[in-house]
Amino acid sequence: MVDVNADLGEGFGAWRLGDDAAMLDLVTSANIACGFHAGDPATLWETCAAAARANVVIGAQVSYPDLLGFGRRFLDIAPKDLTAAVVYQIGALDAIARCMGSRVRYVKAHGALYHALTEHEGQAAAFAQAVADFDARLPVLHYGGAISAKAEAQGLRLVAEAYADRAYTPQGTLVPRDEPGAVLADPTAIAEQAARLANEGKAESICVHGDTPGAVSAARAIRKALADEGIEVRSFL
Amino acid sequence: MVDVNADLGEGFGAWRLGDDAAMLDLVTSANIACGFHAGDPATLWETCAAAARANVVIGAQVSYPDLLGFGRRFLDIAPKDLTAAVVYQIGALDAIARCMGSRVRYVKAHGALYHALTEHEGQAAAFAQAVADFDARLPVLHYGGAISAKAEAQGLRLVAEAYADRAYTPQGTLVPRDEPGAVLADPTAIAEQAARLANEGKAESICVHGDTPGAVSAARAIRKALADEGIEVRSFL
Amino acid sequence: MVDVNADLGEGFGAWRLGDDAAMLDLVTSANIACGFHAGDPATLWETCAAAARANVVIGAQVSYPDLLGFGRRFLDIAPKDLTAAVVYQIGALDAIARCMGSRVRYVKAHGALYHALTEHEGQAAAFAQAVADFDARLPVLHYGGAISAKAEAQGLRLVAEAYADRAYTPQGTLVPRDEPGAVLADPTAIAEQAARLANEGKAESICVHGDTPGAVSAARAIRKALADEGIEVRSFL
Amino acid sequence: MVDVNADLGEGFGAWRLGDDAAMLDLVTSANIACGFHAGDPATLWETCAAAARANVVIGAQVSYPDLLGFGRRFLDIAPKDLTAAVVYQIGALDAIARCMGSRVRYVKAHGALYHALTEHEGQAAAFAQAVADFDARLPVLHYGGAISAKAEAQGLRLVAEAYADRAYTPQGTLVPRDEPGAVLADPTAIAEQAARLANEGKAESICVHGDTPGAVSAARAIRKALADEGIEVRSFL
Repeated sequence: MVDVNADLGEGFGAWRLGDDAAMLDLVTSANIACGFHAGDPATLWETCAAAARANVVIGAQVSYPDLLGFGRRFLDIAPKDLTAAVVYQIGALDAIARCMGSRVRYVKAHGALYHALTEHEGQAAAFAQAVADFDARLPVLHYGGAISAKAEAQGLRLVAEAYADRAYTPQGTLVPRDEPGAVLADPTAIAEQAARLANEGKAESICVHGDTPGAVSAARAIRKALADEGIEVRSFL
Repeated sequence: MVDVNADLGEGFGAWRLGDDAAMLDLVTSANIACGFHAGDPATLWETCAAAARANVVIGAQVSYPDLLGFGRRFLDIAPKDLTAAVVYQIGALDAIARCMGSRVRYVKAHGALYHALTEHEGQAAAFAQAVADFDARLPVLHYGGAISAKAEAQGLRLVAEAYADRAYTPQGTLVPRDEPGAVLADPTAIAEQAARLANEGKAESICVHGDTPGAVSAARAIRKALADEGIEVRSFL
Repeated sequence: MVDVNADLGEGFGAWRLGDDAAMLDLVTSANIACGFHAGDPATLWETCAAAARANVVIGAQVSYPDLLGFGRRFLDIAPKDLTAAVVYQIGALDAIARCMGSRVRYVKAHGALYHALTEHEGQAAAFAQAVADFDARLPVLHYGGAISAKAEAQGLRLVAEAYADRAYTPQGTLVPRDEPGAVLADPTAIAEQAARLANEGKAESICVHGDTPGAVSAARAIRKALADEGIEVRSFL
Repeated sequence: MVDVNADLGEGFGAWRLGDDAAMLDLVTSANIACGFHAGDPATLWETCAAAARANVVIGAQVSYPDLLGFGRRFLDIAPKDLTAAVVYQIGALDAIARCMGSRVRYVKAHGALYHALTEHEGQAAAFAQAVADFDARLPVLHYGGAISAKAEAQGLRLVAEAYADRAYTPQGTLVPRDEPGAVLADPTAIAEQAARLANEGKAESICVHGDTPGAVSAARAIRKALADEGIEVRSFL
């Protein structure tokens, strides 16, 4: 059994990114942007409505405040500012999700903040504090690193995710993006890796990217490979 | 019995506005900015914490998305975008208020959106829809106009407020700002008007401005005048 | 002889809009966004570089400050604020264009500000003031209305443009967007209208939209129709 | 002979910071914010007009795009994005300054970007590239570090500045802010240090802070101390 998650709701105003409608048929968890790297209120409204209709679990995909950089640039934000920003974002998305009869069920960091949770003790602690302050029953979807101990200290459940389209070293760490072969592009290779990750029980959730040209076909290939292996796909909750 | 409300939390990042600490001793309801015209997450965090400590009721002061214009300029926003923006703001502030053991207990529009609730049918309806979708038990603090029927249609309580420092015509409408004498500056005159409004039962809440140089002394004069008249000051809830 | 213009550089950060590379082969004037409704500095940098390489004339496409609304919503901005905002935008784009060996050669308003130049006396005057203050030799590309007299009063040249894909009444005004047939979708009809507008001398420049799915094919059809009619396509400068 | 500079124009919309009018009587160079950490177009307009009237030289105080953090937080921006952002800001301010009969005459980085010019090779190079691309005759006002070689490589003049209110080690480097005594608060001590720095020829320009409560009295004390020592105060141009 494994969960499949993807980033959704990452448009802003007139701008769109990815094919959310197609992805909602293929994932069991939707990491929905909260307005700080993408996702204006009206986009969140539509995305939450669509996720609720599709019976997909809604997670808050929180970010640094950086629309211009799409949340992909490290920002040296003070821990107390980060805690407030994370609570603000979860609360905003949760309010909209509740209007659709759903709610925020987990939290995931986006972009450079995701990496900071792995490597930056202060920001990881501030993030865990925010989730615990908002609702300590919400799991954090992440890969590992600094956030592990901080989440534990706050009594938060950490859900391990792995990337279907990123190469791993034999030791189980990600091959850095700037090395050859770091990112898998072939849908078959991506699907095989997803099935292997699920079979080996190395991840409770598999992340598929939603914003690349081949995203939808890769996600379809993953679902087919998981079905072929007889692995049930459902939310980690 | 009357409530006294003021706008708080209207700084942004390095910028401050008004003396929130002093005002919290003088009001029973705090209209706290939600980040769209003012109020970054860290400012909301501090303001909600201070309001909770002071036992002041927290209201969401929602706005057009217009930091540059401080929400004071009419924006021709589509009703569905406004509904989503209002829910987003209330949810964000409510999440922070809950971290302080408090919560959002009412909603008030800010600036040009406040005026739109009086005069713009479509925006007033979109606003009432948002409050009802978030939590229909939250009252709307306003003056009247278009919002009255829209709030009623949604089953929302409308709490009537009046301005201590604005002149009223004999018919009970506000003297337009560009007419002489429209804005009262003398603390004694402001205090007398506040006592008169409360005595005549024309308002459930009296709004005092928090962002002007004389704001704190005006609020003190109002509290003294109300005490002298034997009028109890407490939240309208 | 007629000019063909289109809106370019309307991405923002990670978001893209339209096929700028293809459009640059088809237009003689590029209305480049200046950062207020779209167009972050890096996008302007790339777009100005590409326009300079393609020998396309660069115009500043200035807007209300409204990224979220893509500049399409009326904003009741004070005239002096608008003048400052327009100068700011032209100057920012001009600096980048000069780094590419080019420069801003004309100014066009975007979205709701474009409409305000037709209908809003105060904003039209503030806009003309801004262009004249920056450089009174820059023409304003527009359709008509309030801006005509304001531009004349400032000694600015007004260049008349017409829309290839919008229906006109027999009196020569635009059919409102909400009426049936207001927007032409068929490339052949669009191309025929462009040729007719050019032949009748009703416009010095023809605007083609760059952000719709069929934009590039419509622009190609227009260029072919103009060539078939023997109408030279070149900048209005 | 020495120049005295201060940061000005650092309000945003309804928010004000510092007493620009008073400071303009006391400085010879105004580092005017360009909209990315502070300084909306209308504020720049007023500030440039006031600087031009006071015959104070205008410099562009460029920043990371971070209104919320007032440009005080390191941002891991890509070099090409930084170059574009710096040119954008200089051009925007220069356009407004020219409307007042003045122009941008030098460039200074703000906040965390100022520190990056000292310590971050890639950002320092991108910054120097931007100034050279805009106008290689503009000096860069800075303290030293990485920017020194990058400015030289671009043929830019570097103007050395020192802080009147920061303690220096015997080796001439700044005492880190978190050490006791790092920031001088006493106007007399600040004035004495300014006179000493000018007498020893260690700086071509002395920076006085404009946004603190005692800023104006400190600047007055500095001017008096320099006058007492017979040191002429004028622009470094």
